[in-house]
Amino acid sequence: MYNMDRLYEAVAARGPVCAGLDTDPAYIPPAERRRAASDAEAVLSFNRAIVDAAADRTACFKVQIAYYEALGGAGLEAYAKTLAFIRSRGCLVIADIKRGDIADTARRYAKAHFEGDFEADFVTLSPYMGMDSLEPWLSWADTKGKGAFALVRTSNPGARDFEYLELREDRADTGGGPDGPSQARRLYHAVGDKLAELAASRMGRHGYGALGAVIGCTGREEARAIRERYGGLFFLIPGYGAQGGGAEDAALLLKEGNGGVVNASRSILRAWTAKAGEAGEEADNAFAGEAAREAVIAMGDSIRAAAAKTAGSRGAGL
Amino acid sequence: MYNMDRLYEAVAARGPVCAGLDTDPAYIPPAERRRAASDAEAVLSFNRAIVDAAADRTACFKVQIAYYEALGGAGLEAYAKTLAFIRSRGCLVIADIKRGDIADTARRYAKAHFEGDFEADFVTLSPYMGMDSLEPWLSWADTKGKGAFALVRTSNPGARDFEYLELREDRADTGGGPDGPSQARRLYHAVGDKLAELAASRMGRHGYGALGAVIGCTGREEARAIRERYGGLFFLIPGYGAQGGGAEDAALLLKEGNGGVVNASRSILRAWTAKAGEAGEEADNAFAGEAAREAVIAMGDSIRAAAAKTAGSRGAGL
Repeated sequence: MYNMDRLYEAVAARGPVCAGLDTDPAYIPPAERRRAASDAEAVLSFNRAIVDAAADRTACFKVQIAYYEALGGAGLEAYAKTLAFIRSRGCLVIADIKRGDIADTARRYAKAHFEGDFEADFVTLSPYMGMDSLEPWLSWADTKGKGAFALVRTSNPGARDFEYLELREDRADTGGGPDGPSQARRLYHAVGDKLAELAASRMGRHGYGALGAVIGCTGREEARAIRERYGGLFFLIPGYGAQGGGAEDAALLLKEGNGGVVNASRSILRAWTAKAGEAGEEADNAFAGEAAREAVIAMGDSIRAAAAKTAGSRGAGL
Repeated sequence: MYNMDRLYEAVAARGPVCAGLDTDPAYIPPAERRRAASDAEAVLSFNRAIVDAAADRTACFKVQIAYYEALGGAGLEAYAKTLAFIRSRGCLVIADIKRGDIADTARRYAKAHFEGDFEADFVTLSPYMGMDSLEPWLSWADTKGKGAFALVRTSNPGARDFEYLELREDRADTGGGPDGPSQARRLYHAVGDKLAELAASRMGRHGYGALGAVIGCTGREEARAIRERYGGLFFLIPGYGAQGGGAEDAALLLKEGNGGVVNASRSILRAWTAKAGEAGEEADNAFAGEAAREAVIAMGDSIRAAAAKTAGSRGAGL
């Protein structure tokens, strides 16, 4: 059984929210931060509180390693312990590391992030160097069920710089089929198409491969087209909330409310400030955890409601 | 003064070799590996011996972080100490980390790798997500002279998957100039062109920007065209030796023997096995260091000789 199957089942049971532990020390209630021996320790304690409070309504957690690297060796220790804590609670964790390097190096990276101190259930990958930078990770799907999400189309403004570039291809390939003229293929389509092919070689029991795609939450027409084109790819969907995407945008990238997880981080980690204010002297980690849990529930409910509406309009022939 | 200027001067003084410390514990003389308390410690001692022996003939060192991550927390400690040791010897070090993430995250990564435990002089970056994933790193060029090399065209087989894809562009852009019809622009050209533009905003005293490019060592016609197109970009050139590129291929990516560093790793780290045999029971780190130094000198001499020949044929109107 692949972790991607477990993730599908987690979405079915707990909703589509992926809670991002991109924990800047500045996000932590001030009293807790002062109490901790170091920022790295403050981050770890805070993360534990969030995980404990929100786990039963969260499909998975995603940990952005940059926030931990920025705290040096102690930060990476907090990173390792955060991953271990999440997994000890029976939850799935995505290591957001966006690695991408040649085959020999990819094998070392895979060892680093799929076993030992930094073991995660999934990683994120960057495809620029080509498929030989992605394939080595898949042997871990075979042996331990591990999964990965490769960048396809992201939601940052810079996505337009390269991901959206239109490709020059033989006319035979782009002349359109019986459904009319086809759209020009963009770089992100080339990446997604090759990923979909590779994912098909590791197909799980719920119709999704062990390799998925990072698809940012922007643009409705595009979201519909992408969801249709990549039926066998499970999506990791960033760009919700802070980056501008809403519940309906996210829902369009799901299939019947599953087939993807929607990531939010700051709005969850900092939900406590809406209740306690920025200063929040009275707030502690338990308070922050409770606020995070409420934020996760509200977000999950919005996306599920939007997904139900989408399914309804699809059923009506739209 | 940018680190890229210092690198230019190091190449002028010591030759164009970038020694890659992609140190797999299996590369270390067995007696030394047995003697060390852990593989991470063995790696650190070995690295120190290589740096001490080869520093005066090496333009810079490059440390591939994957090899250290694969050893977990202890490996990253060895990574941090390796960087610190190289810099304490007055040498420049490139952290081969190929990071690439949205702006907020890029800022954390830059903090992680340009100060504190993991401080390096240069990093490598992956451009897939666009220019907003690269720009935040450049503020460190302004404050501390730091530099970066972004992936443009790599030398692994998978480079053909995406980097070489031809772009569809307006005819006006591709119709060719007075020198005849222009070549189709590929993805790597689009990346390189935008990098060159950004690098021009941080131009150093030797005619190269603080931002450079990773250009793999393959294909002579292409090498000439790339060197000509990106006159203001300093190149980090992998793919020498083990990956198939030779001295002449590398020399074509230089300008008068400078403007780039040529990376090799395994052929330098494992040079001792050619003298002592794979078993190498008599070999120690000092022996490995001496062999590495000889390998670096031989490699540097080959590239300089090839560069002189190239300059000669260019001078003759070829």
